[in-house]
Amino acid sequence: MRLLPIVLLATSALAAPLHADELRDSAKDIFAPLPSTVPAVKDNRITPEKIELGKALFFDPRLSASGVFSCYSCHNLATGGDDNMETSVGHGWQKGPRNSPTVLNAVLNEAQFWDGRAADLMEQAKGPVQAGVEMANTPAQVVDTLNSLPQYVTWFKAAFPEEADPVSFDNMAKAIEAFEATLITPAPFDSWLNGDDLALSDDAKAGLVLFIDKGCSSCHSGVNVGGHGYYPFGLIEKPGAEVLPPDDKGRFAVTETVDDEYVFRAAPLRNVAVTAPYFHSGKVWDLKVAVQIMAESQLGEELADQEADQIVAFLDSLTGTLPAITVPVLPAETATTPRPTAEVLR
Amino acid sequence: MRLLPIVLLATSALAAPLHADELRDSAKDIFAPLPSTVPAVKDNRITPEKIELGKALFFDPRLSASGVFSCYSCHNLATGGDDNMETSVGHGWQKGPRNSPTVLNAVLNEAQFWDGRAADLMEQAKGPVQAGVEMANTPAQVVDTLNSLPQYVTWFKAAFPEEADPVSFDNMAKAIEAFEATLITPAPFDSWLNGDDLALSDDAKAGLVLFIDKGCSSCHSGVNVGGHGYYPFGLIEKPGAEVLPPDDKGRFAVTETVDDEYVFRAAPLRNVAVTAPYFHSGKVWDLKVAVQIMAESQLGEELADQEADQIVAFLDSLTGTLPAITVPVLPAETATTPRPTAEVLR
Repeated sequence: MRLLPIVLLATSALAAPLHADELRDSAKDIFAPLPSTVPAVKDNRITPEKIELGKALFFDPRLSASGVFSCYSCHNLATGGDDNMETSVGHGWQKGPRNSPTVLNAVLNEAQFWDGRAADLMEQAKGPVQAGVEMANTPAQVVDTLNSLPQYVTWFKAAFPEEADPVSFDNMAKAIEAFEATLITPAPFDSWLNGDDLALSDDAKAGLVLFIDKGCSSCHSGVNVGGHGYYPFGLIEKPGAEVLPPDDKGRFAVTETVDDEYVFRAAPLRNVAVTAPYFHSGKVWDLKVAVQIMAESQLGEELADQEADQIVAFLDSLTGTLPAITVPVLPAETATTPRPTAEVLR
Repeated sequence: MRLLPIVLLATSALAAPLHADELRDSAKDIFAPLPSTVPAVKDNRITPEKIELGKALFFDPRLSASGVFSCYSCHNLATGGDDNMETSVGHGWQKGPRNSPTVLNAVLNEAQFWDGRAADLMEQAKGPVQAGVEMANTPAQVVDTLNSLPQYVTWFKAAFPEEADPVSFDNMAKAIEAFEATLITPAPFDSWLNGDDLALSDDAKAGLVLFIDKGCSSCHSGVNVGGHGYYPFGLIEKPGAEVLPPDDKGRFAVTETVDDEYVFRAAPLRNVAVTAPYFHSGKVWDLKVAVQIMAESQLGEELADQEADQIVAFLDSLTGTLPAITVPVLPAETATTPRPTAEVLR
């Protein structure tokens, strides 16, 4: 007798949300809620020691030749994991070629960069450190810097306990990948997928219906609402040269296949409302305008004003909550630490 | 009877450390331990709302015209509250004229900047935001930016509840001052001053004796072991032009008094071991070398090697622990937010 109320409660709690509406069933076929644990990463087991080391590296401006830029500079965790600029400013005040993508949930993308040229975050992390227009450093100098700081040597040993020579450029990238894997941001859309009917407004639900029915979700699907698959920008109608500059041919540079001209990875849309400006060119600041451009160029659809607003309301529901990130305490330079240089050598 | 053990404990706890040694008595006449509460600031009552707003502003790169630099860029809380560079890199890759001082415990300095030209942190905070070589912004554009972000308007109202027009450049500076007032870093030296005999090593104690006896503490005294009073750099013997560049006449630029040529505020020495490079010119990376230069130029003393090492051991005991700082979540741009510009207009 005493068990009855609990059984009843459990039954109703299970029964109520599971078949609450058909929209959720459709959505669950296309999208997926974020996992509740740190995603596993291929060939890089994630441990607390790697995460802590990776956090230190992510915040450390001494990974750049100038000492000005850290990963955090262009992937600012206070502003949606990106830098709120068309394209980033790097070493010697040079402008990067493409808009900085958010690091949040990036571990769940199929590949990294706008053209997918890095298979994973480990490979990605090595790029900006060496790029002349970004951090302008070399692997050898990064390793020299890390070896000059005894605290880092200790941290690397703890993070890679079975390796004879743990302080390496590869392990730097692995640790950064481990930290970045923790940057998962559950959002109202996840709550709704998981059964909370009130987590989405009516407008957001209407926007989700449009997002599916108009065809946006053909490319922007999965756990990151995008972030996998490559598609030509301007499938139906090429946007103007300002939004799609003719000299950036996208994935063509990776595959050298004519079919890949102006092909880009479908942008992952989690936190899109807080990561303007938009597109690889970063030329569009207004999310509604970006939605309208996509509808026209990819689907040949001219959205009604209310439709665009409702899709934006759905996209707003993808803005998630970052775990609390405490600023790390980094070790101080020693006599052998390479000194920062603002000179532009390359 | 049941009270007796507590009374005994209290008595011994009070009696034991107070007269442990004469060195502590001497030191307490010259220095002071950090307070256990956030220091009060003149004309700016510190509240949790102001601290939270100030933290957001401190981390927000949109206070700079380019969107590249926040207060945090040159006062990096992960690296001792400064930027590990000779002089900071700012807007358009320009180099600043003087080494970036640490923001840690800066609220306890008598005045701000190397020449004391700002009376307090509120006045200080307005400087870099407007300096063409730093953040290159204008008060009007900062206020436009803040007003364009509804979350900031709400935060300003909460922080300045009695003001009709709370979003202002002055209140931005007040809030930043309030956050910075929380950046207090208790160190082993404080534990020792407060009675923990084992908090200082024998070398650190020997260094403290030398620091007092040689005369360092004539200028570097008080709670920040410096940070108040103005003294000519090169009182006995001018250091070389590399360390003391002839075109930077220090406080002379503030007072236009010949007596103030090459006069600077005595550097506050808390966290000095983690805030290389040294001097207003940032030309010296090794703390021991900096100590030797100071002994020669200010005191006419050539320190024995061991003496310099012991003074460094004492200075190491001034490296403190920052309260945990969680990266804030900043509001996203809106249609009316001024866009970042990397152009160098001035």
